[in-house]
Order: sequence, then C-alpha cells, then structure tokens
Amino acid sequence: MPVVDIHTHVYPPSFMDLLRSRSAVPYIRSFPPDTSPRLIILPGEDSPSNPSTARGRPIGPEFYDISKKIEFMGKHRIDISVISLANPWLDFLPADDAGPIAQRVNEEINELCDQYPGRLFAFGALPVSASREVIVMEIARLSEKKYIKGVVMGSSGLGRGLDDPALDPIYEALQEHQLTVFLHPHYGLPKEVFGPRASDYGHVLALALGFPLETTVAVTRMLLSGVWDRFRALSVLLAHSGGTLPFLAGRIESCVHHDNHLLDELKQGERRSIWDILKNNIYLDAVIYSQIGLKAAVDASGSNRIMFVSSNGNFLAGTDHPFFPPLESKDDEWPSVQANFNAIKDAFDGNKEAADSILGGNAIRLLKLELRAE
Amino acid sequence: MPVVDIHTHVYPPSFMDLLRSRSAVPYIRSFPPDTSPRLIILPGEDSPSNPSTARGRPIGPEFYDISKKIEFMGKHRIDISVISLANPWLDFLPADDAGPIAQRVNEEINELCDQYPGRLFAFGALPVSASREVIVMEIARLSEKKYIKGVVMGSSGLGRGLDDPALDPIYEALQEHQLTVFLHPHYGLPKEVFGPRASDYGHVLALALGFPLETTVAVTRMLLSGVWDRFRALSVLLAHSGGTLPFLAGRIESCVHHDNHLLDELKQGERRSIWDILKNNIYLDAVIYSQIGLKAAVDASGSNRIMFVSSNGNFLAGTDHPFFPPLESKDDEWPSVQANFNAIKDAFDGNKEAADSILGGNAIRLLKLELRAE
Repeated sequence: MPVVDIHTHVYPPSFMDLLRSRSAVPYIRSFPPDTSPRLIILPGEDSPSNPSTARGRPIGPEFYDISKKIEFMGKHRIDISVISLANPWLDFLPADDAGPIAQRVNEEINELCDQYPGRLFAFGALPVSASREVIVMEIARLSEKKYIKGVVMGSSGLGRGLDDPALDPIYEALQEHQLTVFLHPHYGLPKEVFGPRASDYGHVLALALGFPLETTVAVTRMLLSGVWDRFRALSVLLAHSGGTLPFLAGRIESCVHHDNHLLDELKQGERRSIWDILKNNIYLDAVIYSQIGLKAAVDASGSNRIMFVSSNGNFLAGTDHPFFPPLESKDDEWPSVQANFNAIKDAFDGNKEAADSILGGNAIRLLKLELRAE
Repeated sequence: MPVVDIHTHVYPPSFMDLLRSRSAVPYIRSFPPDTSPRLIILPGEDSPSNPSTARGRPIGPEFYDISKKIEFMGKHRIDISVISLANPWLDFLPADDAGPIAQRVNEEINELCDQYPGRLFAFGALPVSASREVIVMEIARLSEKKYIKGVVMGSSGLGRGLDDPALDPIYEALQEHQLTVFLHPHYGLPKEVFGPRASDYGHVLALALGFPLETTVAVTRMLLSGVWDRFRALSVLLAHSGGTLPFLAGRIESCVHHDNHLLDELKQGERRSIWDILKNNIYLDAVIYSQIGLKAAVDASGSNRIMFVSSNGNFLAGTDHPFFPPLESKDDEWPSVQANFNAIKDAFDGNKEAADSILGGNAIRLLKLELRAE
C-alpha cells in the first residue's frame, strides 16, 4: 500500500510573486541587515519588537520549488503527496481580484502535479472573498481538473465563520461535485487568551492550543447551525486529528442535550449528533503525536477515516528563529515525521491492515487518487 | 468503597447576602414581572436583550440550603461530597474586603460540613485580590480547619493567570500545607471566538468548548513558566477531565520540542514534561461524558488519579431558561449524574477496583478524608 501524505503545503510561483508584492500581512520581504527573505502570515508576527518570533519565518525553495517536495518525499518514503496552498490561502484578496487569482493559482498547482504524475495530487484554493457565484463556478471548474481532489479552506469561510448560512450554495456545490474540504486552522485564538507572558513561550501556545481549538470551534459551529443536517454527504478532512473533537464530543452532546434553548431550535429528534458526523462525514489526519490521542481519534471516527501526514509545512518542524541554530541538520530525516510514523505503527501493533489504511489506503479511497502501475 | 463527589458547589448564606447586595456581575436579583431571584455570574449573561439565556439562571435553595445537598446525595447514592464555593469565588472582591470575607465564607463552609460529619468536606476559597501575605495566612489558617481539604481556584490567579511569578509564595504555601488546588474554569474564551451567531446556540459553545479550553490553557501556561519545575509536589485537581490535556499532551510536547526560543529558555534537559505532570501532580475528575474521553484521561493520568463528580452545580444540568419547561422533573434522578456513573462502569467493565477508586478511593486518599465507622 502506498504511503500518502495528505497535509503538505506549497506556495506556487505566482503566489510567491503576489506575497512579494505586498507590504501588509501576508507578505514576504527581507529585513536588513539579514538579506534572506522572510514570510509573515500572522498579524502577531509582524512586529520587530517581538523577541520570540523575530519577524515571520525564513522562506526558501522548500516552499515553492516542487522538486524539493519530491526530494522530501523520497527521504521519508512517502509515495504520494496531496499538496495544498498554505495559509492564509486566498482569504485576504480584494473581492474583484480573488476569482482570477484563484484560477491562476489552481492552474499552476494542477500543472505542478502534472510534472510528477501519480506522485502529486492537490486540494484547490477557493476565492472566498469573491461573490458566491464566482466561488461556485471555481468549484465546478476544479472538479474537472485532473489532479484536484478537493479544496483547502480556513475556518473563517466568507469572513463570518463556517456556520454562515451564506455558505450554503458553496457546501451544496462541494457536495454535488464530491470534493472533500480540507479544513485547516490559521486564525488561532485571540492573543489575550494566552496572557501577558505569551511571548515568553515562543509559538507554543498558538500552535499547540490555538490551532486545534480553532478547528474544534469551527466544526462545532457547523454542527449547531445545522450544516451537517442540510448537507449530509459533505466530506471534511480535519487537520490535527480533529483539534480536540474526539475528546470533547461527549461533552458537546451533553451540553446540547441540556440546553433548552437549543433543544427547541434544533428539534432534537431530527438533529444529527457529533458522533454521527465524526463517523460519517469527517476524516482526520494523524497529527496528534501520542498514542493516547491517536486511539481516541480512531475510536471516534474509525481507523478507516484517519490519514497520514508528514507535518512538512505545518510549521511544527520549522526553524522559525534565525537567532538560534536549527535543532537538526536539514539533511536528516525530520524527527516530527518519524514521530508520526512511529505513533501509527505503535498504535496498530499487529494490525497491519489498519496501519496501511491510515498510511495511505484511506486517502486513496476518499480522494479517488489514481494509482499508476509500477 | 464510599462514593465521593469532588465537584459540587455551594453558596453559603453570607455569600448569598453579598451577591444580593451587589448590582454588578456577579449578583442576584429578580427581574419583574418575574419575582424569583436570578443569579448572574458572567458578563455575557447580563443583558436583557440576550434571547438565549434570559438573564442568568434561577437560584433556589439547592444553591445555599445544605440540606438540599444531602437530599441530592441520598437520591444519587453519593456517600461523601467535597463542596466548594461556586465561581467566581472571591475573585471580584476589592483588595481590602477580600481577607475578612474569605475568613467568614470559609468558616461558614467548615460549619456546614460540621452539620453532617463524615458526609461533607470542603475546598476553601482564597482572597486572591488581597495582598500575598493575607492569602498565605489564609492558606495556613485553612490547613488547620477540620473539614477543609484543599482550595478552589479559577484560572486568573491574582488577575494575570496561573503563570504569574507573583503566585510563587502561594504555590509554596499550598505545597507546604499539602492542600490540593481544585482548578475550575470560569472565564471561558472571548466572545468573538464563537462568532456572530453564538447566541443562537444557547450556552453550548461556552460550556462545551470555552470551559475545557480555559483549563487547558491555564495548565499549559503553568507548564511553560516552570511552575511544576519549581513546585514539584504541587497537587492540582482539574475540572472536566483536564479540559483537553489528555488529548493534546503529545502536541504540546511536540511544539515545545520544536520551538528553539523555548528550548533555550527552559533548558530542556531539566524541564518536566506535561506527561510527567499528568502522572504525578494532576488529578482529573470524570466529567467527560464518553468512554473515549474517559479512556484517554485514564491512559494519560492513570486510573488512580481520576475522580467522580455528580455534575451537580456545574450548570450542565440546570434549567437556565424560564421560557421553556424543564427537561425533566426535579424529583427524578439527574440524567447527567447517571451518565457519569454509567461511563465509569462501562469503561472499567470487569475491573471493580479501578471503578471503585474513581468513584471514591482516589478522593479519599488524595484529600485524606476521614471515614466514619458505620
């Protein structure tokens, strides 16, 4: 069974040019005396006085040169990568630009895949700031592209979250074209949640807690607004093993069952539970870094719904700080990738079929990836 | 083995008088034409225009009449309750009032326990807005009280979170007197996290996600600031099975290990991991409402560190909305209590010893509860 990495990012060349042309977040520039370019994608990073993060992170060819991706895959025994544009995707574009830029970026991503047929597939990016008609048209267009197997989206949707009723035509189009949504966090939690000493802790609170919480809140809002009742075949892949959903699902259901206001609104009898959604609409990646977490994810969604990811590009293994030497040589295997391999193998000791499904089979089935004869 | 409920709240009479005398959150008053008193403890509840919550919640004798607690215990076969002042405790008091009010409230709580010897014990409340000397003195005083076995605290500490170095003398005193901290959420997450439609969902997002996240963030901040390295015997009981810590512990460790800034600061070699803390300093209640969550909690901390709670008073089973009839008659058993009983029994099918430990033995051991001869 091939090993498939479903969470791995690129910035194609035209998107790099766009970032280089900007001076507000997100953007790329160098900060003299350092001459190497840096990528700033979060408002919190955009301050020269932040001692913990410098400004943004170094951005080298591993972000845009597709041959580096193939090299990385070779080193880590990954057969297939399903690449996606990295955050913040196209969320920040002016309404009029979004449609044409989305087309250009998606075409480029499809062409990158075509350079390594059978080894690369992709999630497309949506022009979320454009009109709903333009977004729906782009979804239809993407569904015709050879290598595009779904779309990557952030938690803000059209700007008001994924429980916004204005998203209904978009959910409908995604469901109709059987495109899976790869839901990825970006916005995290407001700074004040982490307190006055947060900058002492580097990126840890935002990455370890902000990201998974953002995902959990986004999906719970979808649940409470009835998205899953209206679009019963909508398929969503959640980053970071569902944020915290496998652990908190019981609490979510208990709170719903004890909230009289909600009981009345949702007409409980017809409502689908979060357990139902986890088992029938949601897929999870295996980025959880512990057997305890992975077991909870598998128990919640089933081993046929968990997928492997190398963690390349999700910044957990990046060396964000030019002031400190990298933790390991760039030529070595990434420890975070090995940790994910090991967690999967340990958790399914003696059950090769389940491990293989997670390492590749589930992604091949869900995304209908065409395998090439050896 | 007796069944011990370690998460069950009271407002003793003097605290009720205090709340009735106030006109800003937290306070108690009635809103004509309704003549029954209502308790408003969260700023978000304090608006007549909020359609989902009315204003606060009804507050009846079950909050302050200790005989109602004993009645509730009898109905649910709970032998011992470790009562605590409900949120927001004494967090809101002016600095000068805090010390004397804490003494009065704690004396009253100790006396309530004395009315039912062997059946009631308590966590005391700290005058967190007073000077550190006053707080430390109250800790020493509490340690002499017959029925006080620990202290209940919110996540704000002295106002700047539990990673505030100003808390060190307080942690030191708690450790010295071997008083367990019952860490309970109250502040949740900022409103904007839940989006513009949050009020459509009743209290669900704040209770199901805001509370556990608040706890998770608080403990992770303690970890990153080195509290657990400085106070290696500090014992903390976490509400709601640790928020999301059992699920996210692996991710927290991975993020720490990949953050160069933090590696330098913490001198990794000497740092205690979150797994170490979960197994040696942290105790968890069993309020997670699913076997999947409970198993993760047990795997993370051990079945000798999980404790039973009836969920009386944590508002999950309240009937917040006067405009809708209660879900069940008040004379029946609370379904949420039964759900927690069943989750524990199911999760430990065939292992009576583990189930008994969780239902009572762990609390008796940790809090050194004196059992009375039958």
